[in-house]
Amino acid sequence: MLNDKKDIQNMKDRRNVLINKVGVKNVRYPIIVQDRTVGSQNTVANLDIFVELPHDHRGTHMSRFLEVLNKFHKDNIIENLESFLKEVKNALNADASYIKMNFPYFMKKAAPVSRTESLLSYDCIFEASLREKYELVIGVIVPVTTLCPCSKEISEKGAHNQRSLVTVKLSLREFIWLEEIIEVIERSASCDVFPLLKRVDEKFVTEKAFDNPRFVEDIVREVTVRLQDDKRISWFKVESENMESIHAHNAYACVEKDV
Amino acid sequence: MLNDKKDIQNMKDRRNVLINKVGVKNVRYPIIVQDRTVGSQNTVANLDIFVELPHDHRGTHMSRFLEVLNKFHKDNIIENLESFLKEVKNALNADASYIKMNFPYFMKKAAPVSRTESLLSYDCIFEASLREKYELVIGVIVPVTTLCPCSKEISEKGAHNQRSLVTVKLSLREFIWLEEIIEVIERSASCDVFPLLKRVDEKFVTEKAFDNPRFVEDIVREVTVRLQDDKRISWFKVESENMESIHAHNAYACVEKDV
Amino acid sequence: MLNDKKDIQNMKDRRNVLINKVGVKNVRYPIIVQDRTVGSQNTVANLDIFVELPHDHRGTHMSRFLEVLNKFHKDNIIENLESFLKEVKNALNADASYIKMNFPYFMKKAAPVSRTESLLSYDCIFEASLREKYELVIGVIVPVTTLCPCSKEISEKGAHNQRSLVTVKLSLREFIWLEEIIEVIERSASCDVFPLLKRVDEKFVTEKAFDNPRFVEDIVREVTVRLQDDKRISWFKVESENMESIHAHNAYACVEKDV
Amino acid sequence: MLNDKKDIQNMKDRRNVLINKVGVKNVRYPIIVQDRTVGSQNTVANLDIFVELPHDHRGTHMSRFLEVLNKFHKDNIIENLESFLKEVKNALNADASYIKMNFPYFMKKAAPVSRTESLLSYDCIFEASLREKYELVIGVIVPVTTLCPCSKEISEKGAHNQRSLVTVKLSLREFIWLEEIIEVIERSASCDVFPLLKRVDEKFVTEKAFDNPRFVEDIVREVTVRLQDDKRISWFKVESENMESIHAHNAYACVEKDV
Repeated sequence: MLNDKKDIQNMKDRRNVLINKVGVKNVRYPIIVQDRTVGSQNTVANLDIFVELPHDHRGTHMSRFLEVLNKFHKDNIIENLESFLKEVKNALNADASYIKMNFPYFMKKAAPVSRTESLLSYDCIFEASLREKYELVIGVIVPVTTLCPCSKEISEKGAHNQRSLVTVKLSLREFIWLEEIIEVIERSASCDVFPLLKRVDEKFVTEKAFDNPRFVEDIVREVTVRLQDDKRISWFKVESENMESIHAHNAYACVEKDV
Repeated sequence: MLNDKKDIQNMKDRRNVLINKVGVKNVRYPIIVQDRTVGSQNTVANLDIFVELPHDHRGTHMSRFLEVLNKFHKDNIIENLESFLKEVKNALNADASYIKMNFPYFMKKAAPVSRTESLLSYDCIFEASLREKYELVIGVIVPVTTLCPCSKEISEKGAHNQRSLVTVKLSLREFIWLEEIIEVIERSASCDVFPLLKRVDEKFVTEKAFDNPRFVEDIVREVTVRLQDDKRISWFKVESENMESIHAHNAYACVEKDV
Repeated sequence: MLNDKKDIQNMKDRRNVLINKVGVKNVRYPIIVQDRTVGSQNTVANLDIFVELPHDHRGTHMSRFLEVLNKFHKDNIIENLESFLKEVKNALNADASYIKMNFPYFMKKAAPVSRTESLLSYDCIFEASLREKYELVIGVIVPVTTLCPCSKEISEKGAHNQRSLVTVKLSLREFIWLEEIIEVIERSASCDVFPLLKRVDEKFVTEKAFDNPRFVEDIVREVTVRLQDDKRISWFKVESENMESIHAHNAYACVEKDV
Repeated sequence: MLNDKKDIQNMKDRRNVLINKVGVKNVRYPIIVQDRTVGSQNTVANLDIFVELPHDHRGTHMSRFLEVLNKFHKDNIIENLESFLKEVKNALNADASYIKMNFPYFMKKAAPVSRTESLLSYDCIFEASLREKYELVIGVIVPVTTLCPCSKEISEKGAHNQRSLVTVKLSLREFIWLEEIIEVIERSASCDVFPLLKRVDEKFVTEKAFDNPRFVEDIVREVTVRLQDDKRISWFKVESENMESIHAHNAYACVEKDV
């Protein structure tokens, strides 16, 4: 009988090692997130959910992470992250709980001249923790165009340019829309990227990028200048990575700041 | 005692299903490959090694794949692929044997003006099979620059460009150097890419790409025109994928041909 | 003025090379798919959409792929794949059109003893083409448990086991539910996997796997035996890949058959 | 003429934003590393090399990173990391320089009973920085077998087990061989994994794992207990991730400690 068996997870542990994080990783789950334009959107997330384990407990209870997730996944999970972490803490009898979520978020993007609309996806990151205090880091990875200022200056014609991925993560004092961060990043680039461009639009983005050359260094500085005075933010990290069109490797820059 | 135990792999199978390929996948191994310039080079490969399994055999012997590999890995393995496959066939008592290898191959690349040399890596693919006949497909993935002809034509200034990956696979009648395929691909692009570019070089590659605009369609056609009359080749597939600098998705083209 | 500019994509091409496939790759888009239980479900897909390009056309029109996609993405796209491909053919003036979709599909899975329900995701693949005839390949990747028959036979206690990924692709004569293929695969394994297992369930799956040892060879044979007599199927390929718990590499087997 | 052109990277920057890290990423390069047994081994690395950029400099000089790398790559680079970083600092006129290297490292591994030798690869990580002081973090990812203690306890027969990846990173006061860390990890698992196992070996590893059940929590605690008293180490992080054979997601645990 199962009842005769030892409950090994509940046994005492004598090795005296507190485990900072233990739990489940790469759980794929359909979720609902806030959408500034239409209220909410359906997407699919990768989730890591952890708790802290005291030095004298042998093991955690992995099934309970999923039980709590099942209760929440039909809600707008981003709006309820603190309650989610509270419930994880309770269910696991833990002093701290953690969640990390990655998911694509879709926004309508109108082409710059023809105004033809289409959907562009942005990879988003939410990292929340709850010990006594609830803490939240949000992030987003935005594809943009960068055009090299040096190449433009030294060449008789043209300038090399490429797709770049700009990642911004923020510690929040107050709520900020993902849409706001995306806008800051897109305005800092040589040009934003679009899912659908007609001929008139392609002419526009080519010339706009040529008129706004940006090193990888410029991108992270432009984003920094726009973020560092925002009182809603207590810390940020901005990274830019160019898939250089003239090299097989990437160019990279990063600024990290408490503000 | 082990000797009392059934040798399950050697049992008869009554389900009457021939298994086309069975074996080991994602074996990482240091290998030695031919290098046209210096004779040989050390690199690291991912290997898949399979045999065909007759309908009436329950299982193959996974350890023997590694035993054969151990005998060969200090040789120049590319030069000995047929003997390798013969030994796999014998060791596993099989009617057919297969190997797929992926590995980075390094070539010295001199910057176009300053002639400064540095190493560029190319992902190579070797797929060989032996039933009665030995058959070999070799392939290489080459990063290049492509500059959009339409963007150049319609814009007052500049033109969007990007890193592209061009993949060529060939069925061989006779030996061809990887270096030859790489050269064909690089000559078909707007410009080749380089690990190290000084200011004079960056001016050169920017202007060269601007003077040689190529759609993803042009790349695969240029490569096709250069390959289709080579008597050493019996089949080829050429694919080009642009990491579009103005989109978050890629542009792709492919030509496949018996010749 | 844009009107003075040449429309380069529409120019004649004299290289005389038909392009088998040209289009967009890695377009991420929210889609709606059929769900046998609740009618439909929201998910996120990666899409490749291509057409054939005649030998005398210089280029395709990349923006039109997205325009057609925008018209369809709020429909149940799986039910409308043939109309989608027809519209792509028309919009691009092509002789053939192709789509490849990958997306996670979620199913409720009840734990075997406690019956606690949770969602498990399966990676699905739809590949459709339309020349004169419409052709459809559907596929799914299913995680399962496999337990080694040899290890069980030769050892005094225990047996090594691991997560395996079983991929089945089918050419269809008639409609088949993804749910049916998933069921065939799960019944062919040592045990199916579950998102949430209580103690009673963990006991059950451990013992079930021990009672049903399966080599990677057995998995592909069991699936073959179940599929080869299904009249709705004209071709299939089944692959199984074990993330061996006793090795750093994987074990692999594959059967491919016209039926 | 190039000489008439502005050297944009050398211009003053007025945005007053120090850039923490700027440089090249994903440079693939053949390297030579120390090998305790045979002196040195050839492998292939992915390299990220960065410097700090003062607030008033517009840009760094990307080509110089490669120039320094070219000077060093034929040396045993691990033995010369501090000189490498010194040269990067000088070449770029920077206050701080950074390198991150990932590469596979191969070790001969004898099967436990038959003693048949074969090569197993371990992913290694070196992260070094130089401001006034040189600092070094070394790490390694080791595949092992873990067998679930709970599953063993509650089941009449068998126990689920799986491949796990254990990652250890260390800040060093004094030199430590990669081989020593790998040994600590392998001794902390249910069993180590092998590239090549004969029947007698498979019996041995199956039974050894069954006799040494370990939760993901046990692995990180066992490694912690073995590392925390080593005076050569000032900080460590140990992570264990089980590719659970009974789930599609992973189990994870982590301990991080200053010692």
